[in-house]
Amino acid sequence: MAQSSTREEIIRKGANLIHAQGFNATGIQQILHAAGIPKGSFYFYFKSKEDFGITVIDYFNAATGEIFRRHLNDKTIPPLRRLDALFEYFEAAFAKTGNALGCPIGNLSLELADTNERLRAHLEAVIKELIAEIESCLREAKNDKSIPDLDTADTARFIFHAFEGAILHMKVAKDIEPYRAFRRYLAGYLKRKVVPHA
Amino acid sequence: MAQSSTREEIIRKGANLIHAQGFNATGIQQILHAAGIPKGSFYFYFKSKEDFGITVIDYFNAATGEIFRRHLNDKTIPPLRRLDALFEYFEAAFAKTGNALGCPIGNLSLELADTNERLRAHLEAVIKELIAEIESCLREAKNDKSIPDLDTADTARFIFHAFEGAILHMKVAKDIEPYRAFRRYLAGYLKRKVVPHA
Repeated sequence: MAQSSTREEIIRKGANLIHAQGFNATGIQQILHAAGIPKGSFYFYFKSKEDFGITVIDYFNAATGEIFRRHLNDKTIPPLRRLDALFEYFEAAFAKTGNALGCPIGNLSLELADTNERLRAHLEAVIKELIAEIESCLREAKNDKSIPDLDTADTARFIFHAFEGAILHMKVAKDIEPYRAFRRYLAGYLKRKVVPHA
Repeated sequence: MAQSSTREEIIRKGANLIHAQGFNATGIQQILHAAGIPKGSFYFYFKSKEDFGITVIDYFNAATGEIFRRHLNDKTIPPLRRLDALFEYFEAAFAKTGNALGCPIGNLSLELADTNERLRAHLEAVIKELIAEIESCLREAKNDKSIPDLDTADTARFIFHAFEGAILHMKVAKDIEPYRAFRRYLAGYLKRKVVPHA
């Protein structure tokens, strides 16, 4: 293998192991073994396990961000349909892993937020980008009047928080139903007109 | 120390360490050291680390469940005010730890759901109980017409999911703002009348 494809193979295999086991539980030797790379060559490609962590977060972000953008920027369908298509896509993706694993960004956030400041800051930045993608779609929905005049920043956070919480619940329940509930209550929230209640 | 208080001390110190570091990263020797208990006496009190994990989840559940019930069953104030009081209580509690740590049940769910079936099932049961407490309060709110005729089961899940997702976001941002956003959009959701939109 060329150097670049060896590096990519380490990242891909490492990302899969980290998604399944967490960052701390995944050893460098285990990653090299999975990638079929000789022991000791890790530090040829990465300065430290922390540096590798940054690269793996970028890898997850590239994959997730691409899925978000592909759905949310699809101008051929209305904004709210795009949001639902995004969450439908993830439902199918979760089914492929038996509703285990969950969101790698959410998993790593809870695992690393209090113990590694550099990885924490990187994860926070990724979450900010994903929420911004949702907000951008909501602004389009607000402009075309398909949602009421709500605060798009807060609503984008609500959607992201509920998404992460629902994935957490799905993962611990080993059942897609909590995630389906998320899709239902989100649709109810966004497809209705909200007026002040006495 | 009497045997029962020694056991309680191991649980309390172990729970604090697990809340801060996670279950797998917390060693039995570290717990005993923190509790000031001689090495080797752990297995006098607990059959295995997994058994200890069950006990620690029960400990977290007793604490969190008590906070939920104390606020949500307070019949001296209206149901929606109780919900808000509950989430206000947690905001103050998070401030005491610099918005770190987060929800021990959420943390352990993501850490253990895919690797320990017994602890996973126990965590799922705890989450079910907490959601049931929220739903019971929502049913009261629906009965006294302070919320619209919504699906209380789905709405209770929405609230729990958004709560967990907001805590995750707070923890990774090291900032209370995502949690405050949760309190704002929840209030907006529950205090308004929802009518079908064209």
